[in-house]
Amino acid sequence: MATVSAPRGMRDFLPAEKARREHALSVIRRVYRRFGFDEIETPVLENYDRLHSGLGGDNEKISFNVLKRGIGAEELRAAAESDDLSSLTDLGLRFDLTVPLARYYATHRAELPSVFRSVQIAPVWRAERPQKGRYRQFVQSDIDIIGEAGILAEIELIGATTEVLRELGITGTRVRINDRRLITGMLEAFGFAPEEFSGVLITIDKLDKIAAAGVIAELRERGVTAAAIDALAVFLETEHADTAEFSAESIAARLPAGVDPEVIAELAQIGASTESDLVFDPFLVRGMGYYTGPIFEIEHADFGYALGGGGRYDGMIGRFLGQEVPAVGFSIGFERIVDLIEADAASAEESLVLIYDRNVDPAALIALKNEVAASGTRVRLDKRAKNFRAVLERAAEAGYTAYATVSAETSGASDLDVKPLGAAE
Amino acid sequence: MATVSAPRGMRDFLPAEKARREHALSVIRRVYRRFGFDEIETPVLENYDRLHSGLGGDNEKISFNVLKRGIGAEELRAAAESDDLSSLTDLGLRFDLTVPLARYYATHRAELPSVFRSVQIAPVWRAERPQKGRYRQFVQSDIDIIGEAGILAEIELIGATTEVLRELGITGTRVRINDRRLITGMLEAFGFAPEEFSGVLITIDKLDKIAAAGVIAELRERGVTAAAIDALAVFLETEHADTAEFSAESIAARLPAGVDPEVIAELAQIGASTESDLVFDPFLVRGMGYYTGPIFEIEHADFGYALGGGGRYDGMIGRFLGQEVPAVGFSIGFERIVDLIEADAASAEESLVLIYDRNVDPAALIALKNEVAASGTRVRLDKRAKNFRAVLERAAEAGYTAYATVSAETSGASDLDVKPLGAAE
Repeated sequence: MATVSAPRGMRDFLPAEKARREHALSVIRRVYRRFGFDEIETPVLENYDRLHSGLGGDNEKISFNVLKRGIGAEELRAAAESDDLSSLTDLGLRFDLTVPLARYYATHRAELPSVFRSVQIAPVWRAERPQKGRYRQFVQSDIDIIGEAGILAEIELIGATTEVLRELGITGTRVRINDRRLITGMLEAFGFAPEEFSGVLITIDKLDKIAAAGVIAELRERGVTAAAIDALAVFLETEHADTAEFSAESIAARLPAGVDPEVIAELAQIGASTESDLVFDPFLVRGMGYYTGPIFEIEHADFGYALGGGGRYDGMIGRFLGQEVPAVGFSIGFERIVDLIEADAASAEESLVLIYDRNVDPAALIALKNEVAASGTRVRLDKRAKNFRAVLERAAEAGYTAYATVSAETSGASDLDVKPLGAAE
Repeated sequence: MATVSAPRGMRDFLPAEKARREHALSVIRRVYRRFGFDEIETPVLENYDRLHSGLGGDNEKISFNVLKRGIGAEELRAAAESDDLSSLTDLGLRFDLTVPLARYYATHRAELPSVFRSVQIAPVWRAERPQKGRYRQFVQSDIDIIGEAGILAEIELIGATTEVLRELGITGTRVRINDRRLITGMLEAFGFAPEEFSGVLITIDKLDKIAAAGVIAELRERGVTAAAIDALAVFLETEHADTAEFSAESIAARLPAGVDPEVIAELAQIGASTESDLVFDPFLVRGMGYYTGPIFEIEHADFGYALGGGGRYDGMIGRFLGQEVPAVGFSIGFERIVDLIEADAASAEESLVLIYDRNVDPAALIALKNEVAASGTRVRLDKRAKNFRAVLERAAEAGYTAYATVSAETSGASDLDVKPLGAAE
């Protein structure tokens, strides 16, 4: 029975890790709430057709689907003959929080404010091949502002998320920002054909990994418009590094001529309105095809990956309503962030292990425990064992900070000789 | 598109309801943590064979099962021929928190304290026919003490749960208590045959609903030992109501002669050691067959259903380990309890809606919002609309307690004219 374990690619959380996760969740909830966001919840299951309506991109292919109840031999044979499994399933586990949000918004729009600021912090499931740091169940933390077409939405999202990171104790982050419309303008300025854009962007998205020379080589291999590749190559050579300044001028200076000045002005206005540290990155692409305006990512000098990201995606939230609704979203990489926060934010709390002799009266012991708990101290009972030191070590590992022994003579909490754990023997 | 809704029998939570649920969850977490319980988490999916190993009773029949990935026509035909769906599924959504706990304990025992006090507060799924108050996804809140054979475990569970209810503001609850061994002793004393016990208990469990005459009639219909039914009938006639006293004498007085006095003494000791209001109920059965010792339920005079319940179930948690491990559990009916707590416990928080004119500079508006949020006040921006009163009403509905208008002249938070919501026109 050595192989009793959680399902492949999924995790159990031991008490210390669970406490750390709950601490992070409570900070995220508290800050977003203070910044005017409303938390919502949807079921983990959505109707299969909803999950597979095209809003989920490649994630639709890796959803976990639920076997219909009460399926008979006939339906199985029919599915075998048509080689179509979809008749055997009616529900699926959500693979992101955006499809459920679009569904929720379509269901409840009449009950929600005209500008709706939502928070969702919840698990999602993907049947991917498990690998280091990639799980089949993981938590996403999304905020979205629905119904606000102006940049105030972007500014609010960036500001609130920056504050979440600050209150989690994560410092040294910056927000890289770009705009899908600037990307399009840039590709047009270089001379790429519209039908080449998506392929070109897939390559440009690798700039961090394969550098300018790699991007140019890959584009030549792709066989896209040669003159445009040349123009991009010249641009990449002359491209200068970030400046501390974030202004319309500094943004325009990093783009080819002819890119829409109104979009640049909007980005500059976002920068002027936020206390967050923004960096313009003309080559920030972000994978998802649904973005329509500003896009952003949280970067940290110590990590090669983003701690979060988002952008404007005006076409999507209204899909189930059959109308276009403006929307901007920002997602924190919860699983990455939870590893960065202080090992035990809960260690500040008062906690006490009461080590009791076997002859102590249960009623007296419980009265003592209740007395300690009533003062707000976390308290656990441990039986005295032969190896006293081992009892203390286990209590310290569990995060307890102090201990006291209880005998039949102990008359109450004021009678306890409380000693720090760790410092003890 | 009028029927865009959550899957059948599952719920979305609007912001006010979600806030109430999160408030209840945070109180439950905080109190159990203070009383020395460690929160854990398992994946929502468990391996199919684990979920269908017999520990789940009837719930195994109503689990949602996940379709295996990559199933081909051949497997479908084989399943159709054998009329066996289990080859098409490898995972299922948990239907309770006890099977996952047994699996978790088997996986992690070496990393857990010898007496392990666990808390799990998490959703479970059951493919039941939806009906009023019964959902296909709902939250369970379980605490369990594993590895403690003595009644200290029962006392700790009852005490901690009583305090949870108190801090949730739910008063007037009592704990009905009995012991599976007393039930067996009672049935033996009346003269029922051991093989009749489970059927007799199903009938006795209906005592609240069909009263003594109904129970006796149903037993006669069942055709169990007639003399035993007669003895039970006499006993039910002479049975006297609860007394305020909870002692070995008062318990014995409500049982037929010859029932094990040691078990009675244990119950009395539990009563003597807890500040909770206990009532002995010789006819408390609790459905699940796996209980082995004391069993208990939280009752409230205003409700015809229990707000929670539990008991000792020594045989079960060690099943995946292949050894017997003592265990006691107590489950709160979270979905029932969340309906009983104060409508908006969060309404005590400071909150402010800033109603801004369209000509206000975004940078100034955001600076103002950040200034208010930094003081700890929940703050939301709302655009000024023609129907000013409607804006105020919606803000009040969303739980905000105050508002202020912001114009281009507003110079900072100290410049705001804050008015209470609701009291305002």
